[in-house]
Amino acid sequence: MNYGIVIRVLGDLLRLEAAAMLLSLLISLYYQQHDVTAFFLSILITGSIGWLLGRFTPGKQRIRAKEGLAIVAWGWLLVSLFGALPFIFSNSVPTIADAIFETISGFTTTGATVIKDVEVLPRGVLFWRSFTHWMGGMGILVFTVALLPALGVGGFQIFKAESPGPVADKIAPRIKDTAKILYSTYIIITLVQIVLLYLGGMSLYESTVHTLGTVGTGGFSTRNASMGAFHSIYLQLVVAVFMIISGINFSLYFAAVKGKWNQVINNEELRLYLGIIVGATVLIGLNIAGTYQHFGLALKDAFFQVGSIITTTGYSTVNFDLWPSFSKGILLLLMLVGGSAGSTAGGIKVIRVLTLFKLIKREIAKIFHPRAYVPVKVDKKVVPDDTLSSITSFLALYLLILVLGTIIISLEGVDLETAVSSVITTLSNIGPGLRLVGPAQNFSFYSSAGKMLLSLFMLLGRLELFTIIALLSPRAWRRTTA
Amino acid sequence: MNYGIVIRVLGDLLRLEAAAMLLSLLISLYYQQHDVTAFFLSILITGSIGWLLGRFTPGKQRIRAKEGLAIVAWGWLLVSLFGALPFIFSNSVPTIADAIFETISGFTTTGATVIKDVEVLPRGVLFWRSFTHWMGGMGILVFTVALLPALGVGGFQIFKAESPGPVADKIAPRIKDTAKILYSTYIIITLVQIVLLYLGGMSLYESTVHTLGTVGTGGFSTRNASMGAFHSIYLQLVVAVFMIISGINFSLYFAAVKGKWNQVINNEELRLYLGIIVGATVLIGLNIAGTYQHFGLALKDAFFQVGSIITTTGYSTVNFDLWPSFSKGILLLLMLVGGSAGSTAGGIKVIRVLTLFKLIKREIAKIFHPRAYVPVKVDKKVVPDDTLSSITSFLALYLLILVLGTIIISLEGVDLETAVSSVITTLSNIGPGLRLVGPAQNFSFYSSAGKMLLSLFMLLGRLELFTIIALLSPRAWRRTTA
Repeated sequence: MNYGIVIRVLGDLLRLEAAAMLLSLLISLYYQQHDVTAFFLSILITGSIGWLLGRFTPGKQRIRAKEGLAIVAWGWLLVSLFGALPFIFSNSVPTIADAIFETISGFTTTGATVIKDVEVLPRGVLFWRSFTHWMGGMGILVFTVALLPALGVGGFQIFKAESPGPVADKIAPRIKDTAKILYSTYIIITLVQIVLLYLGGMSLYESTVHTLGTVGTGGFSTRNASMGAFHSIYLQLVVAVFMIISGINFSLYFAAVKGKWNQVINNEELRLYLGIIVGATVLIGLNIAGTYQHFGLALKDAFFQVGSIITTTGYSTVNFDLWPSFSKGILLLLMLVGGSAGSTAGGIKVIRVLTLFKLIKREIAKIFHPRAYVPVKVDKKVVPDDTLSSITSFLALYLLILVLGTIIISLEGVDLETAVSSVITTLSNIGPGLRLVGPAQNFSFYSSAGKMLLSLFMLLGRLELFTIIALLSPRAWRRTTA
Repeated sequence: MNYGIVIRVLGDLLRLEAAAMLLSLLISLYYQQHDVTAFFLSILITGSIGWLLGRFTPGKQRIRAKEGLAIVAWGWLLVSLFGALPFIFSNSVPTIADAIFETISGFTTTGATVIKDVEVLPRGVLFWRSFTHWMGGMGILVFTVALLPALGVGGFQIFKAESPGPVADKIAPRIKDTAKILYSTYIIITLVQIVLLYLGGMSLYESTVHTLGTVGTGGFSTRNASMGAFHSIYLQLVVAVFMIISGINFSLYFAAVKGKWNQVINNEELRLYLGIIVGATVLIGLNIAGTYQHFGLALKDAFFQVGSIITTTGYSTVNFDLWPSFSKGILLLLMLVGGSAGSTAGGIKVIRVLTLFKLIKREIAKIFHPRAYVPVKVDKKVVPDDTLSSITSFLALYLLILVLGTIIISLEGVDLETAVSSVITTLSNIGPGLRLVGPAQNFSFYSSAGKMLLSLFMLLGRLELFTIIALLSPRAWRRTTA
């Protein structure tokens, strides 16, 4: 392991985080609230340590798979720890475990909270909380890759580890350019949504905070009732549509801009993603219609919640934990499926689900023609065996963590539905679950150990399991092997 | 499709079923209960129709994959329909849907019941109910293959479709001999358990009925309190041990008899299976110890329940639905895992879980050595890509049915825990679930549609999903293709 280069990049990352905190400092200065000192201190500490680590001059610049992996895994841990400082210094949460949970929940775009009453918190802290969603959504290291001096071949390793989905799309030949294109698209979408919410009557501050939570598919709000606090159907629909936009592979927007509409329209993942949203909205709409005066309103709430859950954002307009089992079952299914690869969403990802469907179909065909060779194709291209194997291993590992995680979390004394939905909602980076962690509840009742375990699930989910698991493997610590 | 041969074998199967009913008729004649006429009628109808179908003389004797598939799928359906006659004629259940549910639950060795009070039923009916476990456990068609004139090459197709696990072990070169060896082993184990229970003070009748339920890993009892009605620790331990014995690959017993002990001791599936049982027993024992006077008694109940659930039998000595979430979570995990391939148990099967573990391990290794070729090995043999693909497709399809099934079943108005455990317990052929379908409850409250859907899950689980799914595919109905 080339520790020199790893430490230097981690230093760069912390300096970037300190810079990001400056924005929150400006907001707290503007509103003249008590969190000014908290941000000042956090920036000082994060910046200085970032500067110290950045002074490391590595012998070789070369980054191999191993270094890329270490940078991503340690990078996310460090950024989460230092990102927790504003919560601690401003006394926004009771314990350090709470601060770390909240920060990891932010960066991983989960949006699960341990804060019972967010409305009393200062605006700088609430902005920071949602800004972590925005940075974590597109990837904090993808951002670093775009800004900092070239990292050599390892840049792609880092990009791959942080980018959701089984294969990383390289839009431009150079990874630095790919990162720049992705972030430009991301910034444009962000600005458009802020304007649309502001035009709907939301304050500029709340428009910005809710946009950061939407495009990052995070889900932190400035209100205890989440998007349910805004009764305007227009505002709710803007958020719903932008959640769905943020759950689509960003490389498709680039294709659209380049005029490659065929590529967009025929994209199988996009079709299945939109198909699931329409189907789930109609089914839930019909199931909950009885409790609404107009079917249209039922459909609106169903659409909002389906969009929120499949994109793993986690905003809510109503307490869906009170819906019938049928609707809750569909939402649990959507929690597992998640958004598209190359988006800011979490979960198993639609492309993996699609490929698994095709694997099942091939197996059925094999019963009739045992000796036939039938390749699995997505978008008319054969999926390589390596990718198939990584997809099925992902599914198996996801389930393994889900089941073992549920058993361990149930030691906290919660019922099984709470336990299993706590694990799914953190592992898929959603936010709310069912029962004790339903949309009207929060995660504050868990013990510190429980919070740390759930935080680990969030990191596992955001980095798609293997990066974190690999770091726990003894291989990662050997100096000799490549 | 060569319909002639399919119909002839189905006829043979029904005549075999009529013969099996004779045993129950003898018991009802001996005890002089009101079910004599019911069995007489059932035998007459089943036997006559079997005789009629058997008169078909097919043009060609050749059975291809397609015919083997049709024989297995239709065979199980027919046998379940005619097997329901004694329940209907004896008025043991209120509706035909109930009778079909109970019979499919029997043949698939699920052991879920719609009967609220089994203790009032006549002894012939109760014997028939448990005898279906015994026939279904080792396979009704494997039995046919062993008894009837040679079916040609298609015999192996049938054996493969009915035999649990990703690959079918051919113990002897001829499939007929393999079937004979398996059934002989099965009969010996059955006789030994009957004797051991009888020696422990159980009546010969109840010893026999509980043995049929144990070795078939079914779970039907003559008592409403299941094995909890027998307070003798000896009797409970005999049943526990024989459940575990019945969840082991039967070809290992043949290997042991042949003196190939190395093969038995080094069998990776056996080691993992026993390891899981020990681990789960200790964890649950510690978790429930607080409510027991002696730790030994807690360990005994934990051992019984772990053995019962992992082998998908479903007997209980206590109401485990009242245990803490941690213990219930472990039991749910065991419900998914199931027993070994080539045993009478259901579930995903230990060998598949083992292979999935190795797939995950390989994927982690690939992160460090992206270009290395690492084969997956079980018992020191490389698992072919075809088998890997069939295992992962099985997992994906199992999950798909589990999730969609849960959503549909929740339309019955039950809570999610009841819904999901109803589907797992039928799909893995266990019997009891949690909440409304817990060990102290039964499935009678479900609507007829719900009962039929759950019966379908039992058949899907027993025939390992693909056989039934394939039958629904349009390919199965085309005359032309091979």
